[in-house]
Amino acid sequence: MKRLLIGYLVLFTVFFIYIYNYHLKDTITSSYEDNQENQFRGDINEKYVMLTFQSGIEYWKSAIKGFEDAANELNVSVEYRGATQYDVHEQMTVLEQVIAKKPDGIALSAMDPFALNSTINKAIEAGIPVILFDSDAPASNAHTFLGTNNYSAGNASADKMAELLKGKGKVAVITLPNQLNHIERTEGFIETVQKKYPGMEVVAIEDGKGDQLRSKLVTEKILKEYPNIRGIFATEANGGVGITNAIESIKKTEEIKVISFDTDKQTLDKIKEDAIAATIAQGTWNMGYWSLQILFKNNHGITSTEKMDNSKQFPAYIDTGITIVSKENVEDFYAD
Amino acid sequence: MKRLLIGYLVLFTVFFIYIYNYHLKDTITSSYEDNQENQFRGDINEKYVMLTFQSGIEYWKSAIKGFEDAANELNVSVEYRGATQYDVHEQMTVLEQVIAKKPDGIALSAMDPFALNSTINKAIEAGIPVILFDSDAPASNAHTFLGTNNYSAGNASADKMAELLKGKGKVAVITLPNQLNHIERTEGFIETVQKKYPGMEVVAIEDGKGDQLRSKLVTEKILKEYPNIRGIFATEANGGVGITNAIESIKKTEEIKVISFDTDKQTLDKIKEDAIAATIAQGTWNMGYWSLQILFKNNHGITSTEKMDNSKQFPAYIDTGITIVSKENVEDFYAD
Repeated sequence: MKRLLIGYLVLFTVFFIYIYNYHLKDTITSSYEDNQENQFRGDINEKYVMLTFQSGIEYWKSAIKGFEDAANELNVSVEYRGATQYDVHEQMTVLEQVIAKKPDGIALSAMDPFALNSTINKAIEAGIPVILFDSDAPASNAHTFLGTNNYSAGNASADKMAELLKGKGKVAVITLPNQLNHIERTEGFIETVQKKYPGMEVVAIEDGKGDQLRSKLVTEKILKEYPNIRGIFATEANGGVGITNAIESIKKTEEIKVISFDTDKQTLDKIKEDAIAATIAQGTWNMGYWSLQILFKNNHGITSTEKMDNSKQFPAYIDTGITIVSKENVEDFYAD
Repeated sequence: MKRLLIGYLVLFTVFFIYIYNYHLKDTITSSYEDNQENQFRGDINEKYVMLTFQSGIEYWKSAIKGFEDAANELNVSVEYRGATQYDVHEQMTVLEQVIAKKPDGIALSAMDPFALNSTINKAIEAGIPVILFDSDAPASNAHTFLGTNNYSAGNASADKMAELLKGKGKVAVITLPNQLNHIERTEGFIETVQKKYPGMEVVAIEDGKGDQLRSKLVTEKILKEYPNIRGIFATEANGGVGITNAIESIKKTEEIKVISFDTDKQTLDKIKEDAIAATIAQGTWNMGYWSLQILFKNNHGITSTEKMDNSKQFPAYIDTGITIVSKENVEDFYAD
């Protein structure tokens, strides 16, 4: 009887220890997490929004991936929103809807450099930090811009062109002469050719209107006027494809080197076919990844948007860098 | 006897639970830490070095603090090294010594934009990532530069001057016309005045040689030639102090507005005395903080320095921003 009682007691105790530890394990782990959460780890209820325009296009995929990678690292929630069309009023409406939900921060690519300013400022006044990526709204009260330095990208394109042409020959540019980022890419290209490559000359700059057919037509005009043209730089992807269509029709693909911009599937395919020699990949992953890092650091008191605060502000600008894509590394750039 | 035995058994069980849980608590906490450590938390044996020149000056304090703040957050070790003098050979020697110890990364402010290139490249070939802050070595193989956009800082200085002068009057610049960052500050200032403030005119640009006495002398020359001068912008701190010394001697402190650069004690004191109207504080905390963040992310496989890797590279450039310091916020800028 006594032994039976002791036996029961031992069994009961073991069971009690098991239950108690099970509970303890939970408490310790979560209290450790709570502690980390204070500053360097987020909370799953903390929500950040990435907001674009033409939100379904391939171009944003890598930026979204960067935003998600940072969210995973920081243990916060993210949401992807955007105007489905190339429509600034739609983007404004979506931004208003996002503000109403009071997220912890917004990373915005502004379709228009001015039209969204008052809506952006409204978010900031409501205490929601906004940073801009890819397309800036410089006169708004947003804190940071992350994007490509387009002038540098033009420099790098000219260096690549000089490498392909061994520093010799006439070249042309197909661009959008009214859009700031395209003007900067063009200037960067021209000034590098003029300063560094005396054997090269930029003989024509044409407006491709961001359209494949229009770019094909202006290329045909250039090819007629300068039959010995050696290279053409397109500051956007439709221009690049349009140029190759014109060159293919006169069967000079091997002789005229084309450098394009961005990494949509059509451009990458043309690189594999040797129709385009190289294209410029923008650091879109960086845009998403560092946008969230910066918004998070601010919300956790590590940096501050307060202008009076001594130096721990957001950085003013992050040049997210470029990569030159050619046949050797083209496979890495197809979207998964 | 039976009750005594049960009593002992209960006591023993409680003691056992206590010991067991104590041990358990340890294991759970450390295994949770191990798990975190993989990617997002560092190891105290992981070591990063910040390396400067004139390593004892006040200017670096906030950059060191940023580096340390990031180290605390990421749970890694940091070391501060530097050439004690303004001596590029000493800095090269210190860099060699640091490379020999194989740290996990180096954040370097290069005293000379060219002289250190081969030593920097040697570190990178040895697998030690190097990023540059404050002073770049653009032709080296280092991955990122973090620093002030000096042209933008010149723009902001001109805007502040226009605010002080209500957009009217003759102004001058005291600078170092052979040093790139000072050329950029000067250009940024002049171009903003020309484009945005038709009521203002830049009438003189003089070489202050980074020296207080020399800056005083050239200011006296300006004051003689343009007795109705309304403002002077100094692109470095000794210039700012030299200007005030010249202005004080002719007792026109109230009439002529001085804008200086950086936040050493003498400049801040002059702001409190109303001798200097404003100065430009650089985002030095940002330089240190984001340098370590970027080096760490690379070492933990989050970003990569490999040019072939699809987009997850270091950012190319971070503009660490500026703050305009005037009497309202001057107290925040004294070093602790």
